[in-house]
Amino acid sequence: MPTHVVILGCGFGGLFAARALAGAPVRVTVVDRTNHHLFQPLLYQVATASLSAPAVAAPIRHILAGQGNATVIYGEAARIDTARRAVVLDGGDEIAYDRLIVATGAANNYFGNDAWAAHAPSLKTLEDAYEIRSRVLLAFEQAEREADAGGRAALLTFVVIGAGATGVELAGAFAEIARHTLHGEFRRIDPRNARVVLVEGGERVLPTYPPDLSERARRQLERLGVTVWLGRRVTGIDAEGVQMGSDRLAAKTVVWAAGIAASPLGAALGVPLDASGRVLVGEDLSLPGHPEVMVIGDLAALPWHSPPVPGTAPAAKQMGRLAALNILNDLIEGERKAFKYKDVGMLATIGHNSAVAVLGRLHLSGYPAWLLWLLAHIFFLIGFRNRIMVLIDWAWAYWTFQRNARIVLQSRRGI
Amino acid sequence: MPTHVVILGCGFGGLFAARALAGAPVRVTVVDRTNHHLFQPLLYQVATASLSAPAVAAPIRHILAGQGNATVIYGEAARIDTARRAVVLDGGDEIAYDRLIVATGAANNYFGNDAWAAHAPSLKTLEDAYEIRSRVLLAFEQAEREADAGGRAALLTFVVIGAGATGVELAGAFAEIARHTLHGEFRRIDPRNARVVLVEGGERVLPTYPPDLSERARRQLERLGVTVWLGRRVTGIDAEGVQMGSDRLAAKTVVWAAGIAASPLGAALGVPLDASGRVLVGEDLSLPGHPEVMVIGDLAALPWHSPPVPGTAPAAKQMGRLAALNILNDLIEGERKAFKYKDVGMLATIGHNSAVAVLGRLHLSGYPAWLLWLLAHIFFLIGFRNRIMVLIDWAWAYWTFQRNARIVLQSRRGI
Repeated sequence: MPTHVVILGCGFGGLFAARALAGAPVRVTVVDRTNHHLFQPLLYQVATASLSAPAVAAPIRHILAGQGNATVIYGEAARIDTARRAVVLDGGDEIAYDRLIVATGAANNYFGNDAWAAHAPSLKTLEDAYEIRSRVLLAFEQAEREADAGGRAALLTFVVIGAGATGVELAGAFAEIARHTLHGEFRRIDPRNARVVLVEGGERVLPTYPPDLSERARRQLERLGVTVWLGRRVTGIDAEGVQMGSDRLAAKTVVWAAGIAASPLGAALGVPLDASGRVLVGEDLSLPGHPEVMVIGDLAALPWHSPPVPGTAPAAKQMGRLAALNILNDLIEGERKAFKYKDVGMLATIGHNSAVAVLGRLHLSGYPAWLLWLLAHIFFLIGFRNRIMVLIDWAWAYWTFQRNARIVLQSRRGI
Repeated sequence: MPTHVVILGCGFGGLFAARALAGAPVRVTVVDRTNHHLFQPLLYQVATASLSAPAVAAPIRHILAGQGNATVIYGEAARIDTARRAVVLDGGDEIAYDRLIVATGAANNYFGNDAWAAHAPSLKTLEDAYEIRSRVLLAFEQAEREADAGGRAALLTFVVIGAGATGVELAGAFAEIARHTLHGEFRRIDPRNARVVLVEGGERVLPTYPPDLSERARRQLERLGVTVWLGRRVTGIDAEGVQMGSDRLAAKTVVWAAGIAASPLGAALGVPLDASGRVLVGEDLSLPGHPEVMVIGDLAALPWHSPPVPGTAPAAKQMGRLAALNILNDLIEGERKAFKYKDVGMLATIGHNSAVAVLGRLHLSGYPAWLLWLLAHIFFLIGFRNRIMVLIDWAWAYWTFQRNARIVLQSRRGI
């Protein structure tokens, strides 16, 4: 039997590892707990009603249909038995492997305050995106029905906690929804009076970006109407608002974009983890003492790599390709290669014609950065069809300021 | 204060009543328990992964934004107090009315067997559509993992109960998914071996159509690979399959398309109802003894009308327009008009190039009927944008046999 490569998780890392093994004399089994590969960089647009789910997700089975050596299993790994070289799925089925690539990514991290999750959802999955979309749109609906001025103000206050790329993108989109999308549609409230507050514990937005771009991003956010609060640590979140030390902000809609933790499968490997629960891997991305197991993407910690590898899609793709390459090197008894991140820059969008970008030494902001962001995201979207549909959706949204996907599924949520 | 017209429900009836009052010297308040108007005739395409929710739904608030005399309330009527002329919303808010139009439509009817609903969802709302989509796509996923042949067969058997338009459309689409969409994507099962069974208690499919078209529809369904069982009454549905008298069909996926009942709000009016729970209205669509209250659409029973009025979108629209017209007649003390249904024909689609249509004396089937169906549905879709998007989706699906919206939200469902 040819070497059996099992890949857990079909995000960017897992998918690019699987694809890099196309045509190779190996059997590939991809296991994922959803039926789709998710284009995570555009997930915030599902949450903010610009795109529908099928625009940013594609069935894994369809993506890999033409790859004859690949089998797709819809399931979740419950346990990994590295001694017996087997993955135990939920339900008890076992899959034996010769090589294992663990690419189950990251989950959200409330830093020990898991009770906050109920009041401040975060954005990782399509379900999360629908939950946030629903909360934001229904807050305006409830405000239209609310007789009490204080209650209305809390309903029209939207707080985003954490000013990384996701937080900045969400806050910018919320402000555009209030200012443009909903304009003229309400009779009792004016959506333009809604307040969008972006709360960040550090001293600048987009902390992984160069300081000049952080400053330009902050100015672009404020121009859109976002209130940016820096250096404020959140100490409590409940159904009525957010506590920051002795300050209180009454808000019915809070979104958490402040931290991610590694997928719990890392801990199940029984190897050393870093503070965020990520698995410490060697230069060939393998587990110490287990060259047949590799960990890639957001689940992997590479403390030996300088500068640090960002937790982005390009980094996960590069790791996926290298893990596959090293497996092929094993087959020909070649030497494994060390992972070296190739910097492709960073991009974050803020709103209409408004973004920041780092490309090596080049720092861009405003319209040129936005145009670059748009082209890059269209180019990297999985599937020709998704590209066309997203382009059309964006063109429509750009000219009309309307949002295609303002559909809330739940019939009612306890008003 | 101008006359206050309250409209409960924003389906075809409610929406067309509201629009017919645009520019009139009245205040209009539209109450709906969802934030969107749903284009129900295409809902089965959301359930069968062809279209995304935003393609067949539009925010009510956005549709009516330009109508200055209309206010939209996101809420549900809990009670109607006809004596005090007030609608009591969930949460207790009251809305006083001068004229009331009740257009809350129909719900599903399991004929007293409500326990069946858990095993055989039906198709009324977007949630229903997602539930059915999820069950159908995950059944194939589970079959790929199932080792037992009997278990696999039950997972690959799809039963649709009721051969009205919705049942026929669902069964045809399920057969196309199995035959075309999923072709080549599985390694252990062949989706083309899936069995789609359409079960009907009566003696022909599409019982409201002329018999020759029922026969042609049956033949088109069988050509697509659907097994059509006529004259079989379902006597039980559980998690493992469907019972029809002494016959048993093992099936993990069952959809109920056999009956609708009127919305429970009809009973809340305290007036005579017909056997399906519909409100018996007079010729001007008003409630006996309450000329200021009108009931329209699927909630209204018009036993005095011959031939019977079908429970379709065109009938609901016509009733909505007449209810509005009669309210305007009241304002000028003119005489109310009697409702007279203008027959616009009937259309049901079965699959690629396959449909049936009645236009007066003209009976069409196959490609001409399909083309007519396509043009009619595009033409009547709400919103220019939705029309374009649906056209593009359909063109794509037509040429590639692919389905855009094969995204299942739930991470896992107990495999």
